[in-house]
Amino acid sequence: MLISDLDTPTLLIDLDVMEGNIHRLADYCQEHGLQQRPHTKTHKVPAIAHRQIRAGAVGISVAKVGEAEVMAAAGIEDIYIAYPVIGDLKQERLARVAAQTSVAVSVDSEEGLDALAGTAQREGCEFRIRVEMNSGFNRSGVPTPEAAVDLAKRAATSPGLKFEGIMVFPGHVWRNRERWIDVAKEEGELVMRTLDLMKQAGLDVAVASGGSTPTAFISHEVAGINEIRAGTYVFYDRSTAALGVSDYDQCAATVLVTVVSAPEPGRVIVDAGSKTFSSDRIAGGTAAGLGLDGHGRIREHPEATVGWMSEEHGMLDVGNSSHRFRVGERLTVIPNHICPVVNLFDRMVGVRGDRVEVIWPILGRGKLQ
Amino acid sequence: MLISDLDTPTLLIDLDVMEGNIHRLADYCQEHGLQQRPHTKTHKVPAIAHRQIRAGAVGISVAKVGEAEVMAAAGIEDIYIAYPVIGDLKQERLARVAAQTSVAVSVDSEEGLDALAGTAQREGCEFRIRVEMNSGFNRSGVPTPEAAVDLAKRAATSPGLKFEGIMVFPGHVWRNRERWIDVAKEEGELVMRTLDLMKQAGLDVAVASGGSTPTAFISHEVAGINEIRAGTYVFYDRSTAALGVSDYDQCAATVLVTVVSAPEPGRVIVDAGSKTFSSDRIAGGTAAGLGLDGHGRIREHPEATVGWMSEEHGMLDVGNSSHRFRVGERLTVIPNHICPVVNLFDRMVGVRGDRVEVIWPILGRGKLQ
Repeated sequence: MLISDLDTPTLLIDLDVMEGNIHRLADYCQEHGLQQRPHTKTHKVPAIAHRQIRAGAVGISVAKVGEAEVMAAAGIEDIYIAYPVIGDLKQERLARVAAQTSVAVSVDSEEGLDALAGTAQREGCEFRIRVEMNSGFNRSGVPTPEAAVDLAKRAATSPGLKFEGIMVFPGHVWRNRERWIDVAKEEGELVMRTLDLMKQAGLDVAVASGGSTPTAFISHEVAGINEIRAGTYVFYDRSTAALGVSDYDQCAATVLVTVVSAPEPGRVIVDAGSKTFSSDRIAGGTAAGLGLDGHGRIREHPEATVGWMSEEHGMLDVGNSSHRFRVGERLTVIPNHICPVVNLFDRMVGVRGDRVEVIWPILGRGKLQ
Repeated sequence: MLISDLDTPTLLIDLDVMEGNIHRLADYCQEHGLQQRPHTKTHKVPAIAHRQIRAGAVGISVAKVGEAEVMAAAGIEDIYIAYPVIGDLKQERLARVAAQTSVAVSVDSEEGLDALAGTAQREGCEFRIRVEMNSGFNRSGVPTPEAAVDLAKRAATSPGLKFEGIMVFPGHVWRNRERWIDVAKEEGELVMRTLDLMKQAGLDVAVASGGSTPTAFISHEVAGINEIRAGTYVFYDRSTAALGVSDYDQCAATVLVTVVSAPEPGRVIVDAGSKTFSSDRIAGGTAAGLGLDGHGRIREHPEATVGWMSEEHGMLDVGNSSHRFRVGERLTVIPNHICPVVNLFDRMVGVRGDRVEVIWPILGRGKLQ
């Protein structure tokens, strides 16, 4: 089967490029003595998670219990839910996952921690606990090293729980691309202060987990961190390429589309809009400054972009292109942000050159709970 | 089963409110002698399509062949694909739909039209043809009445095709809320000019299809239009309420969420981000002018909003709220734009008061092809 046999829109994965991405970061982690636990939210496909583990990852990260269920059912071992798991229904499902494989989970509240301890005791399982800290992104996470120590002590003395370490997420690097190294070093200082306090408190900290795709290859500059969770690196996207984190050639995931309307000069419409590409802009709000508006780069005609969209229509901005786009013509688009795009497809098609090698159902898609 | 028995995030449909929305527009259409063909992209659920038809709709509109397949399989008759269907693979699937029920389809190119004629002859079926015209939104659609007449003539003389009429979509009203009536009247002038030319050319025009949710109740002001396709009216959303097209009380669809993190004053995080709400802003780009930033209205605390998001985290903007949000607390959110939210869930839960009445699989979800 060839790419030309596929209907559109279709999510294509260039397997050679993906494998290059996987091995490049695995090699970096090995070189620097970092353990790698990729966030699988980017691909949501167990077969790709297994490839990451074969390349050296110690396990995976996920956001939702539903994703952990899918990955455990596919034989993935050692799963970290890098998200506060709140509510009896979810915690009981997490106990079912913990019956199959080792499970770690983030906490940033006493309520969440105590409930997990209750669930673990009731269900006869163990949860490894990582205290989430806010390192500047201002999302979830306790605000200070002292608060982290308090929660860690509580975890260490709660039956059914095993305190394992701390977790940070440097999501704010997207907003600070001029000073990534500084952000990394500030995060390292926070981690080191916390590790010192925990040591003084007699706590055994096995893991300090950090990392994200933009900072993946400077993880060794973040003092104290010994695990990274970068996820987007497996495919990269227009955002990572725009911000210099990857090349466009390292973008493994593209969407194959068809021109369905070209009724007059300047109006060219493809069969993929926000229901396919999501409405995500280039990460970090820096699009305007970089001249990177729009919703996707046309690989065959990079002077054109997906300029604006409705749900099923992608209106190309062809003002800078001399190409005459024709109804029926096929194009491949590099989306702004690949993670939500994967979540909008039911399957992805792995290709080498123009041949279809594998079609993967996106088993972790749509796991909102 | 009660709402309190459900895990989060869950998509809730208030059935009383939805039924009120369905009947209000059906009554309007009856009063004004308009036929109604709701776009089912908003709900993607055959059972709701059947309710719309029982209330008086003549059939439905969809965007993709995959949606038509789902609706035909659920016994919906008379399906209009309000989208150019390009490519042999899709047209052959459309012929399978036409073997089950009457099918109409949009065209705005000779290439698309001729291919449909070829498919119809080869497969032994008939497609009803509606010529799509651009009435100012600058999406798909032929640019002039003369171009519409040319395409209509070609359809009328193509074996396998039956020319049925014209179609316009006033999507640009979102950008022109100060002058909706003017936009409606301009569209009416275009439609009348086209109908006159078609009459002169001896063409029989059975349908002039228009309408959208913002202009639904002024459809009788658009000269020549005898069918409307409004879809969002079934649920409405924060965009329609913000722009005065509906009340907030008419918003039938909300997302039930849980506060999962509240680590310090001012930081409150719910278990739903852009993977649940999509990244769509308030429609029309008028959010700033209306003070309507953010990604959802908290029904219980309308002074708060979903301020910013990552994929799985919704960070509430609680600066104007005196409520103390607690971990484990449940809230209901009215999303900015309901259509992409429905597409991100696998099922919706129909409720009356606090009781669960029905759980519908969203069978038309994710039909990208």
